[in-house]
Amino acid sequence: MKTCFPAVGALLLAPLLLAAAPPAPSPNEVVAQAPAADWITIPATDLLVMDLPPLANKPRRVVIQLIPLPFSMPWVANVRRLARAAWYDGTAIVRVQDNYVTQWGDPDGEDPIKAKRLPPLLSTSNARYTASPKIGMIFTTSFDPTDGQEFRDIGLQVFYATRLKGLLKSAKPTKDPYAPSAHNVIGWPLASDGKRIWPVHCYGMVGVGRGMPPDAGSGAELYTVIGHAPRHLDRNIALVGRVVQGIEHLSSLPRGTGPLGFYETPAERTPITRIRLASDLPATEQPRLQYLSTESASFDAYAAARANRRDRFFIHPAGGADICNIPVPIRTKP
Amino acid sequence: MKTCFPAVGALLLAPLLLAAAPPAPSPNEVVAQAPAADWITIPATDLLVMDLPPLANKPRRVVIQLIPLPFSMPWVANVRRLARAAWYDGTAIVRVQDNYVTQWGDPDGEDPIKAKRLPPLLSTSNARYTASPKIGMIFTTSFDPTDGQEFRDIGLQVFYATRLKGLLKSAKPTKDPYAPSAHNVIGWPLASDGKRIWPVHCYGMVGVGRGMPPDAGSGAELYTVIGHAPRHLDRNIALVGRVVQGIEHLSSLPRGTGPLGFYETPAERTPITRIRLASDLPATEQPRLQYLSTESASFDAYAAARANRRDRFFIHPAGGADICNIPVPIRTKP
Repeated sequence: MKTCFPAVGALLLAPLLLAAAPPAPSPNEVVAQAPAADWITIPATDLLVMDLPPLANKPRRVVIQLIPLPFSMPWVANVRRLARAAWYDGTAIVRVQDNYVTQWGDPDGEDPIKAKRLPPLLSTSNARYTASPKIGMIFTTSFDPTDGQEFRDIGLQVFYATRLKGLLKSAKPTKDPYAPSAHNVIGWPLASDGKRIWPVHCYGMVGVGRGMPPDAGSGAELYTVIGHAPRHLDRNIALVGRVVQGIEHLSSLPRGTGPLGFYETPAERTPITRIRLASDLPATEQPRLQYLSTESASFDAYAAARANRRDRFFIHPAGGADICNIPVPIRTKP
Repeated sequence: MKTCFPAVGALLLAPLLLAAAPPAPSPNEVVAQAPAADWITIPATDLLVMDLPPLANKPRRVVIQLIPLPFSMPWVANVRRLARAAWYDGTAIVRVQDNYVTQWGDPDGEDPIKAKRLPPLLSTSNARYTASPKIGMIFTTSFDPTDGQEFRDIGLQVFYATRLKGLLKSAKPTKDPYAPSAHNVIGWPLASDGKRIWPVHCYGMVGVGRGMPPDAGSGAELYTVIGHAPRHLDRNIALVGRVVQGIEHLSSLPRGTGPLGFYETPAERTPITRIRLASDLPATEQPRLQYLSTESASFDAYAAARANRRDRFFIHPAGGADICNIPVPIRTKP
């Protein structure tokens, strides 16, 4: 055995010796090397599963991770309630605007007679754009909760807020054009001005369609970003999550030709078969997904590799990257 | 007549009086109000017209504006030459990677036997990633020109470089994560470190596919950005233009399921009917497009409106915008 060892070692070393200065690993290679402990499993209770009709005999499934406490609480609670009530089933994708958003909901939502009735106990009018000084967050609201434990547990809210503030304080300042700082924290792209913290509109983030203020939307109409990050929407629209699987089923749809990319005829719309919380599906049907902990050394190495590409293809490392160009890696649980 | 006038005036004023503090115009409204003098017509010699087969009986035309001197000169010359030789006709879209690029070229380009022969006088191997101190530009090259007036006219190169440097000197510094400054100048999104100036990878920009360095690509394989700006490619790949019309025909294609989004079977590819310089088409077929002068007061107002949305929908103006979120407005010549 002993005599074998050096020989095997030499064989393994050979490729390294041939390439005098081996190129740095690519971001994907860094992610592939991350230890199992750096991956966090997304609870099935935080996953929304959206099924569209098969296309060319292939299933079309989109999986959305809901944003955790303390962000956008009334809207996330609404989305859970709408999914549980099977309310989204039979609604449709009504708008695809190139380099902007794909949006879905009730095509007759604006029609007072034809509009699909919303389930009870939904926050539709009271959700307001107010900051809670106690929590220090934009998108906590003045909505008086009548359902959903997440509204009531102020202690948990304060815990999250304190944790976020600590994480952001220790993070380096960034050259973000939209906010004093922007970092991937607790698995999400967040910006901060030192007093408030908010999630940002990167590719694939899911937000709540709304009318003119003070309307804040209910969550019955949702959209996802399918182009360059429209960061001007940050703090203007509630973000409730992000697409973690199957974004291509939303981003590759034909663009609408009406104003703002709305489809002009019902035939152009893609019907939504159903949207469910993964935890309400049979165990065998639940997606098992993980994200790379943003508080891990692997994530730091990944972010550094994204900002300074030194793998073989690259000549000039950029020396920086905007937050939306450092998407949090997602994988199927091995 | 005289008595009529105040009445009409009062009617027109009524909506304004009702809204005590009228909201600021949106970026689109600013652009719509720009005077004719602020629009610059794109010469037909700078437009590439790409025709794809009709889909659902609708024509699919993509128009690309080639980047002007002094950027990426050998590659732009190659692209002109390839279009003039009808070389692209019958090639195909071979790769669509979500949130990244759509790429086209010869599907057999890597096969030494089956590869389509390139026209003569093409710069395929000499184009190198060298900066010319005289011009102060990345992506001027050491290529020894044998054709194309744009290579020879050093006086014009110096004129452009001087003009760009002057414009960038007068421009304010920006919070760009990738470069000391980034501005829309001479109609294009450019970044600079004070010594060098280079075009950047915003949505819709068109670049030159290449292999590993020192290969610099020829222009026979091109891609366009269909997702969040992959700015890490800046200065690593030559940019030759941008899609100014019909990007939706490239961004809404089915994503490839092979590595890097390449299609796995020939049947998935979209064939390219033809690519021509607009100036080589009959006058009636030439697109007539204009861009809003980036040196106009209208553009300044538009950029300010993009960075500080104060139209009715918005609650929190961002106070900034990244360069790729201030796309240069394009319109059909009225």
